[in-house]
Amino acid sequence: MLTGGEVDNVAGLLTLRERQALTIYATAAVHAVLDSNPIFEALDRQVVTRHLVALETPVRTDLQLTFTLFAVPGKVPLYLEDPAAAPAVETGEMAVGISVTDGRHTLHYIPGCAAMTPALANRLRNAELVYFDGTLWSDEEMIRAGIGQKSGLRMGHMSVSGPEGTVAAFRELGVRRKVLIHLNNSNPVLLDDSAERAAVTAAGWEVAYDGMEIEL
Amino acid sequence: MLTGGEVDNVAGLLTLRERQALTIYATAAVHAVLDSNPIFEALDRQVVTRHLVALETPVRTDLQLTFTLFAVPGKVPLYLEDPAAAPAVETGEMAVGISVTDGRHTLHYIPGCAAMTPALANRLRNAELVYFDGTLWSDEEMIRAGIGQKSGLRMGHMSVSGPEGTVAAFRELGVRRKVLIHLNNSNPVLLDDSAERAAVTAAGWEVAYDGMEIEL
Repeated sequence: MLTGGEVDNVAGLLTLRERQALTIYATAAVHAVLDSNPIFEALDRQVVTRHLVALETPVRTDLQLTFTLFAVPGKVPLYLEDPAAAPAVETGEMAVGISVTDGRHTLHYIPGCAAMTPALANRLRNAELVYFDGTLWSDEEMIRAGIGQKSGLRMGHMSVSGPEGTVAAFRELGVRRKVLIHLNNSNPVLLDDSAERAAVTAAGWEVAYDGMEIEL
Repeated sequence: MLTGGEVDNVAGLLTLRERQALTIYATAAVHAVLDSNPIFEALDRQVVTRHLVALETPVRTDLQLTFTLFAVPGKVPLYLEDPAAAPAVETGEMAVGISVTDGRHTLHYIPGCAAMTPALANRLRNAELVYFDGTLWSDEEMIRAGIGQKSGLRMGHMSVSGPEGTVAAFRELGVRRKVLIHLNNSNPVLLDDSAERAAVTAAGWEVAYDGMEIEL
């Protein structure tokens, strides 16, 4: 189940080659990314099913789970950007979140999101569990650290901190468990003893770690 | 320095993105593979230099080392194969070995090779150090294990064992140190206590391991 066509969304597929049977669920736009890169033919189409998913259309899987893809504010992958075009934040099939339900419990998985819209807030209100984009603590963090020339918003990510940030955006949503995922290594929230970690913990957030398991 | 356009030759580039300065040395055919997959534009061309290397033409690097690419018997990447075409073993820019020298010592690095030709034997005769394709122990190994439908030769790899195999092909070449690399996880040589490991050790071969260092 792919949430976009960016390198970190799709490159891992190349380690699943070449005779491992699986199904790739993605929007038409993301499947088009795979189709336009011949290297993904390493996932042999006779073994690996490519399943087209429409937004807002539940997909029932053999795991007894139902998945629904929905658009979130985001952008096209950096490597597909037209350098001459304005770096607009767009919504569409290229950046999606996933709702997963077994009929009794529901979680939402949103690894990249550029802004909290009213529609997204409505979807998440009073949710049991939300995994959410924690890429950067502040918008200029990578520029200040000298490891990038782009702001978070320029890369399609809202920041954790700030008046327009994730912590603020979730404050009134009543989400029961909130987990930051997809953290960039420049995000000080990753440090157990940082002031930033203390701040998100105080605001009711957890920070994901390898091997984390949550039972609903 | 890329030795081919197969997934295991090039996919690692995607983890070096996106602002890490490096130079990619490769033949025109391998650069064409990168060019035809937009995802490799993640390696920003303003930061990552793409250096075209002609076969048999020494390239001097700022490491005080000189590299020479040479063709070995091999084949095009599986994902670029024309299913209707005969699975011929071809020689060309798509499968290359590398000779590395500092002017005093020389090593040869050949991670994929479908056959020992007279030209290759001449190149390697009495060499100080050769790293060589150890993908499979026997040609039908993956088919027998039920993990693939293709023979080693079909994938462009000669086997370690057998009358046409690597151990036999090197027996009279007088190479001082011989190291098997690029071992598939089906190759019993990987097991320290296997009969196959004992056989290659008796024949003067070493098996590469993570962190291996060799001083010439």
